[in-house]
Amino acid sequence: MDNRAIGVFDSGLGGLTAVQALRRLLPDEDVVYFGDTGRVPYGTRSAETILRYALQDLRFLMAHSLKCVVVACGTVSSVALPQLQQAVQAPVLGVIDSTVRAAAAATRNGRVGVIGTNATIRSETFQRGLLAINPELLVPARACPLLVPLVEDGRFAPGATVTELLVQEYVAPLLAQDIDTLILGCTHYPLLTDIFRAACGPQVALIDPGHETVRDLRALLQETGGLREAGTPGTERYYVSDSAQNFLQHAGMFLGGPVQGEATRVDIENY
Amino acid sequence: MDNRAIGVFDSGLGGLTAVQALRRLLPDEDVVYFGDTGRVPYGTRSAETILRYALQDLRFLMAHSLKCVVVACGTVSSVALPQLQQAVQAPVLGVIDSTVRAAAAATRNGRVGVIGTNATIRSETFQRGLLAINPELLVPARACPLLVPLVEDGRFAPGATVTELLVQEYVAPLLAQDIDTLILGCTHYPLLTDIFRAACGPQVALIDPGHETVRDLRALLQETGGLREAGTPGTERYYVSDSAQNFLQHAGMFLGGPVQGEATRVDIENY
Repeated sequence: MDNRAIGVFDSGLGGLTAVQALRRLLPDEDVVYFGDTGRVPYGTRSAETILRYALQDLRFLMAHSLKCVVVACGTVSSVALPQLQQAVQAPVLGVIDSTVRAAAAATRNGRVGVIGTNATIRSETFQRGLLAINPELLVPARACPLLVPLVEDGRFAPGATVTELLVQEYVAPLLAQDIDTLILGCTHYPLLTDIFRAACGPQVALIDPGHETVRDLRALLQETGGLREAGTPGTERYYVSDSAQNFLQHAGMFLGGPVQGEATRVDIENY
Repeated sequence: MDNRAIGVFDSGLGGLTAVQALRRLLPDEDVVYFGDTGRVPYGTRSAETILRYALQDLRFLMAHSLKCVVVACGTVSSVALPQLQQAVQAPVLGVIDSTVRAAAAATRNGRVGVIGTNATIRSETFQRGLLAINPELLVPARACPLLVPLVEDGRFAPGATVTELLVQEYVAPLLAQDIDTLILGCTHYPLLTDIFRAACGPQVALIDPGHETVRDLRALLQETGGLREAGTPGTERYYVSDSAQNFLQHAGMFLGGPVQGEATRVDIENY
């Protein structure tokens, strides 16, 4: 039994899709979330800057009593995970390992597409992770830099023409390589599941990193006796680096429901 | 005669369109540019965060010997200009005044559209500036949050289908109000001039804030004897808060030519 909270951080609001998975799969756990809304997005920045920001995010979270930290951000998981793991004693989980395991298990023809931010795709972390499991895999990849701004502008439901056009454009070269599995390698992309399914067809399995990571985390906590005492529902605390009010206005879209718990602004550059 | 440099800052690279205007209209002047590429964009953030970042940007620039500072960023000019002007002794010029004067002079039917980032449009600063000149004006406004990411993704030339579709969507309600003048109220939008012209038709005058502001600055320096000694071409120094190499790769698009002068990364959160 471990009653300490699970820390989650992300470049912004997208990591709330992982909190949604935590609510679903580990509803008894306490969660402390940090979203770097004052410096989002990370995916267009250099690896050095992403690492600098992610270390501050992690140091802020570690001021709380946590049993582990989930790096919900695909960009940070791709670019900075080993350095984050070295920086603190607590276990730090990125989204890469669980995701590539799930994708390698899902593919039938050995062709797994990867999409993500510029920094994620440039790092080739997902691709290397897949090839480490099975060197025979074909892993075409594509950066999709416009999908984050489109989702944040609320254009994620089927019928959002511009988003549909761009998703078709982005997946076309991957479909031309006959992928049967697609890693949605950025927290925002699961909100586009319906549009991706329409663009890729029902034969392509869509892998959601946040969901896969939380599923593995649940198994790990069960195996190691690390679950929180059952009986009372888990609590949620939110911290952001831009206005808490803005956060409360936009978080529901990613959480799939209302924010439960307080939201507070912090000066992240002081950590 | 005043041989000190002109400072220019922006949330990122967009302000280089103002540097392009300086090169054209004031080629003898030295320029010191700061682009907050580590925290761009500003236009989606809260007014408090924009002010906090802009004060750091300004304090950094003021460590140089400057005769004035141009706030090239439409968002900062809209949200934080009076506070910036109070913070330092040197003259701080935003883009609003010159732009609304030019737009009010250009319109023939008294209907001036305004487009910009979310923060710019929400502040209503352009709209209030226009109405202060002529309370009879009709000033429909529209936030265009996706145009910055599209331009930064290189999708600004005619034929960029998604950009053309979004520009048509954004200007439709303004054209429905019969505007004959449109303020391109964000540094990135002048790169879309051809697409805006196609969407609006030749009868709508497009106003470029950077160009108007530099034209007024030239007149001011001429009137007050503040020009740099002629004879040698002006120099340019660039500072950014993310990778200098990334800056050098992308700056040409906004400058309309190669970067002339060194680029250096600075830790802007220390100012």
